Amino acid sequence: MDIIDHQSSCVPPGFRFHPTDEELVGYYLRKKVASQKIDLDVIRDIDLYRIEPWDLIERCRIGYEEQNEWYFFSHKDKKYPTGTRTNRATMAGFWKATGRDKAVYEKQRLIGMRKTLVFYKGRAPNGKKTDWIMHEYRLESEENAPPQASKF
Amino acid sequence: MDIIDHQSSCVPPGFRFHPTDEELVGYYLRKKVASQKIDLDVIRDIDLYRIEPWDLIERCRIGYEEQNEWYFFSHKDKKYPTGTRTNRATMAGFWKATGRDKAVYEKQRLIGMRKTLVFYKGRAPNGKKTDWIMHEYRLESEENAPPQASKF
Repeated sequence: MDIIDHQSSCVPPGFRFHPTDEELVGYYLRKKVASQKIDLDVIRDIDLYRIEPWDLIERCRIGYEEQNEWYFFSHKDKKYPTGTRTNRATMAGFWKATGRDKAVYEKQRLIGMRKTLVFYKGRAPNGKKTDWIMHEYRLESEENAPPQASKF
Repeated sequence: MDIIDHQSSCVPPGFRFHPTDEELVGYYLRKKVASQKIDLDVIRDIDLYRIEPWDLIERCRIGYEEQNEWYFFSHKDKKYPTGTRTNRATMAGFWKATGRDKAVYEKQRLIGMRKTLVFYKGRAPNGKKTDWIMHEYRLESEENAPPQASKF
């Protein structure tokens, strides 16, 4: 896989990808939205609504180590005109927001927001809550649904 | 400082230095002992017996992030011929081994050992125990006091 090769050739042993919210928004998401080069291709592009959370583990692997967080970029799904389909649904379930969005700061300046979502199996408004948690980051200044850097 | 510059120019945002015992011994210590190039100069050379643990924080800083572990290479002090001076003493205190050494494996193969030491203020056999813990790594096959990659 791409990422494994990049990782092993560019980052020395002992380094782990544990970005802060500020780094995810201020560096990775900002560059992605601006179509700028990202130093190391550690965050994959996926279509979040065509993949189940448990299938992300392989897709978003970094190197060979054990992970319990996976990072990816995904475009926000557009709502269906009929309104019958849940916006954040996959085949097996749906993502539902929980709690309040958290502000992301860079040196006191608001640069983005972080939304937390939980994955439910089944169809809204029913569905069985799972342990899968997603943090969805957005740039604060962008209006038109920028790509999301998300973290499980 | 050297490390900050190296770090910021070579490792992309979001990466933290959290090496495993296997990486410390199998990559960093092994290369150091063999005088081979280490990709990124994150582990400083110090003289452990001329520096107090609390002074290592600045010396062994990596980048700008909060750390609670510091990594360095140091030669083992040679025992004084008279035998009156504790081998692992600094000006303010001494390092004393605790527990049993732990084996370090690389794919089932023993490659090194890890000794745990505690820092005591004062002079042996007296001295006041502190919270400073050191892990001292050595290659298993080396006989003549190789440099140590140590972790607080």
